[in-house]
Amino acid sequence: MILIEGIAASPGIAIGKTLLKKEENIEINKENITENEIENELEKLHSALDDAKESLEELRQDTAEKLGDEKAEIFAAHLMILDDPEVIPAFENKIKDDKLNAAAAVKSVVDQYAAMFAAMDDEYLRERGSDIKDVGMRVIKNLLGVNTISDQIEDNVVIIAEDLTPSDTAQLDTDKVLAFLTKEGSRTSHSAIMARSLGIPAVVGLGTELLEKAENGIEIIVDGNSGKIYFEPDQTTLDDYKVKLADYEAELERLLSYKDQKAASKDGYEVEVVGNMGNLADVDPILENGGEGVGLFRSEFLYMDRDQLPTEEEQFEVYKEVAEKMGERPVVIRTLDVGGDKDIPYLDFPAEMNPFLGYRAIRVCLERDDIFKPQLRALLRASNYGNLKIMFPMISSVRELLAAKSKLAEVKTELEKEGHKFNQNIEVGMMIEIPAAVMIADHLAKEVDFFSIGTNDLIQYTVAVDRTNEKIAKMHTPYHPAVLRLIKQTISAAHEAGIWVGMCGEAAGDELLLPFLLGAGLDEFSMSAVSILKIKEILSQWEKSEAESEVAEILALSTVAEVKDYLTKLKK
Amino acid sequence: MILIEGIAASPGIAIGKTLLKKEENIEINKENITENEIENELEKLHSALDDAKESLEELRQDTAEKLGDEKAEIFAAHLMILDDPEVIPAFENKIKDDKLNAAAAVKSVVDQYAAMFAAMDDEYLRERGSDIKDVGMRVIKNLLGVNTISDQIEDNVVIIAEDLTPSDTAQLDTDKVLAFLTKEGSRTSHSAIMARSLGIPAVVGLGTELLEKAENGIEIIVDGNSGKIYFEPDQTTLDDYKVKLADYEAELERLLSYKDQKAASKDGYEVEVVGNMGNLADVDPILENGGEGVGLFRSEFLYMDRDQLPTEEEQFEVYKEVAEKMGERPVVIRTLDVGGDKDIPYLDFPAEMNPFLGYRAIRVCLERDDIFKPQLRALLRASNYGNLKIMFPMISSVRELLAAKSKLAEVKTELEKEGHKFNQNIEVGMMIEIPAAVMIADHLAKEVDFFSIGTNDLIQYTVAVDRTNEKIAKMHTPYHPAVLRLIKQTISAAHEAGIWVGMCGEAAGDELLLPFLLGAGLDEFSMSAVSILKIKEILSQWEKSEAESEVAEILALSTVAEVKDYLTKLKK
Repeated sequence: MILIEGIAASPGIAIGKTLLKKEENIEINKENITENEIENELEKLHSALDDAKESLEELRQDTAEKLGDEKAEIFAAHLMILDDPEVIPAFENKIKDDKLNAAAAVKSVVDQYAAMFAAMDDEYLRERGSDIKDVGMRVIKNLLGVNTISDQIEDNVVIIAEDLTPSDTAQLDTDKVLAFLTKEGSRTSHSAIMARSLGIPAVVGLGTELLEKAENGIEIIVDGNSGKIYFEPDQTTLDDYKVKLADYEAELERLLSYKDQKAASKDGYEVEVVGNMGNLADVDPILENGGEGVGLFRSEFLYMDRDQLPTEEEQFEVYKEVAEKMGERPVVIRTLDVGGDKDIPYLDFPAEMNPFLGYRAIRVCLERDDIFKPQLRALLRASNYGNLKIMFPMISSVRELLAAKSKLAEVKTELEKEGHKFNQNIEVGMMIEIPAAVMIADHLAKEVDFFSIGTNDLIQYTVAVDRTNEKIAKMHTPYHPAVLRLIKQTISAAHEAGIWVGMCGEAAGDELLLPFLLGAGLDEFSMSAVSILKIKEILSQWEKSEAESEVAEILALSTVAEVKDYLTKLKK
Repeated sequence: MILIEGIAASPGIAIGKTLLKKEENIEINKENITENEIENELEKLHSALDDAKESLEELRQDTAEKLGDEKAEIFAAHLMILDDPEVIPAFENKIKDDKLNAAAAVKSVVDQYAAMFAAMDDEYLRERGSDIKDVGMRVIKNLLGVNTISDQIEDNVVIIAEDLTPSDTAQLDTDKVLAFLTKEGSRTSHSAIMARSLGIPAVVGLGTELLEKAENGIEIIVDGNSGKIYFEPDQTTLDDYKVKLADYEAELERLLSYKDQKAASKDGYEVEVVGNMGNLADVDPILENGGEGVGLFRSEFLYMDRDQLPTEEEQFEVYKEVAEKMGERPVVIRTLDVGGDKDIPYLDFPAEMNPFLGYRAIRVCLERDDIFKPQLRALLRASNYGNLKIMFPMISSVRELLAAKSKLAEVKTELEKEGHKFNQNIEVGMMIEIPAAVMIADHLAKEVDFFSIGTNDLIQYTVAVDRTNEKIAKMHTPYHPAVLRLIKQTISAAHEAGIWVGMCGEAAGDELLLPFLLGAGLDEFSMSAVSILKIKEILSQWEKSEAESEVAEILALSTVAEVKDYLTKLKK
């Protein structure tokens, strides 16, 4: 038995077989075929093309169902390549004229196209080059009988990889995949967030040991709650975990009873427990897990995997869809939060030495009407179809907040003149994620309807720790006494001014922190769908006054270890 | 007249002639010489070599006097190249055997060596390659009769450049240079800090307009107080500035009367006004400007421009020298503050996405006994020779502070056992430069003898603004209400615990902020030498109670603009 510990990124327990996702090195032999063999190679080609189309069509449908049309578009694009009137004849001609075996013919044509696209100035067209390569590789794998990862997946596998990109994840069949393990990553990396969206256990940041120790097809236990994984577990461990797994599944069953209950403390003090969403596929899980709304709609996905800004109309349709789906439930949409570290090539951000301390989010939007105004227009127009609220990210000063509000007022006037309907009294809020915002929360609170504390960034700036930097990621914790004091200070300033406060960072779904947050007066808890039911349960176990009486004690502690200890002892 | 505005980086006024520092494109013709011309070319070579040695020796001496031995070492290294037993014969042989003119011969040999060094794995040796190129270019310029920038300088010139590195600055004769102007840079860039150290006016960050508009040898006014420069000023402007210059010089004269006065408010409330130092050359200017000690000794210079860590002995000698020079005056030495953005190749830091939020300073030292312990040993041993205090940078938690203190205790025990003498009661303090530290200042204050507020970093993290990022550098200001509240909170927590608080960021020397800092109770003000006298004067114009009465008013303001306005009106 080998035990490795990593970062518990998505809760749950899995017992299954390993499946290593490695970049395969495929050798393609160039063979000269005879006139007689041509027909045979053409047949092989067409059969491989048909298989490729079939699997792409399946992937497209699965992805659309699981993750929404947006994420499925990549496969539609791949299918279109295989339907291109130039591509198939090019493959055929290579076989017929150059007397090449099918695999070598496909490779030769694909390389030629890829090189052509790679030389183009346009970023979008250059990316089409890599799509062509992907598709070509899929056809070649079919020709050579090499399985692609998604074909290799049998039931009950635990995927092991260096890292998983969102599109890797999209290609995996979540009915068969029990868990993810990655060498890289943190609790807030894409793969971790995706795992929580999909409700699959995941342990990330397992380090080089993971890939050194992992073999294909061996038994493994994944404990997504503790971050521990066990290769080839001994019988005792296996038995233990079978019990734990059963308990866990029983817990999931028990938690379901909270689905339609109003989130409230034991003595009936009501708060809101809502979900974070990063794309359309997150909406259903939020509803299925009893989320009372959306506390953070990250609008960035609308801007990604494209070659130009989304139009007002495109955005409007998406905001409207979510508003309608959520009905009376509130949906807090955060305006665009991008900067030098995010990959939106058409926005052409300058490279920065410290992108997290750079030109991003509201700082960009206030200078770019072409980005900001269509989003505000779309948001306002969609407010007609549900309970939308607007939230500005990265506010660090009253000046910025007033500038953003004035832009909103400008857009309202325009829409009115044009005869558009919208909610004139739409609530406007801001993220509290920069220490400066906490320090002047009294002034800011006068200008908004609500705050939402973004703990991930707030911790990052407060402790000066880039959470994606593995050397120091452990210092990024909500249990830092300074962070707890900032949270309390924010809530007090907001309530003083008569506005409500939510939290949409990871900490809002942290079971240990719940008594503190309830006691401190947090009004709204926004988290991954997967955490909602558990948080509702814990809430129901605490009396508000009991939680309140702990706050001063907790705020007096001086170290992370003391805080963690104290909160652990409070656990019911 | 052309007016351009930049960032006022070093105060003062200059009226003089422009001198453009441009990279010269020198053409070296390769000529085949006859047998008869060989002797002549060899003579030219030796005369050029002699001239080069002479000017290098002059530069070395000047630099040692002006900026300390450390900065002068580069020229000693260049001299050694010209004394290398292989180099001169190589030049000669190229002339004799290949029948080349001297300039082409030198170029050929230098290129060959440079290519050889450039291919080496060792960072240090690769840098030697560029030294060889520098020296070669100096000899070639002598051969071709092209002047180097330092030779071109006549009296009363204003240097205009893209940017100035510290070694560029070291090569300039400050008796002749009236001011610096650069296209790049910020108030905290190397060239700006160097200008303030040298007491020369400077305007930086002037943008592309500077180099488009600048011509050589035209009249120019530099206003280092406002950041304005005027090319070919009209008579009215010139007359105005002649008066301003005279006033400024009179002010400098007047300020000298504060040199030997104890820093104190009008009603005799004493504080300490001390200097920041970044290398040994900063010590004299601090004393000449009436500094009452050193509030921030940045120890990084001991680690730079080398190929390995400085030994305990090397560090001891430097700390001892400063301790002795300052006598009874306090000298606060900050332990090493480096990270991914600083160029110390032999420490081999990993590249980081956000180095300012990364693995740096105390975070590194606590994991690296080989770095930390020799520094602590050297500091303790030097404490025997003056009034040294130790300060830890980048403390964000009680855990880190206790770990650093425990390392210090360990080193004390070692030194005792070895029979070394040191100040057993040496004061130990920490930087307050991370928002978390302010929020838990009550806990931290119990563990140290003093705090020193590092406003540059504190602002950076509090407002989430990388001050070196030109897109947003304007947001980096001490007038942000959040920053002022954090400063006040730090001072209150410190005084509550009975310890003193200094400030060693740029804000400590900010004339506008002085009433606020005095009123808030700051005990020590540490700044560039050039600001000391002015701050002493302003201090002497304020009564402590009068300043105190302004603090609450200032802390209630909500925007940077309001704060700046209010402080400007307070100006006496």
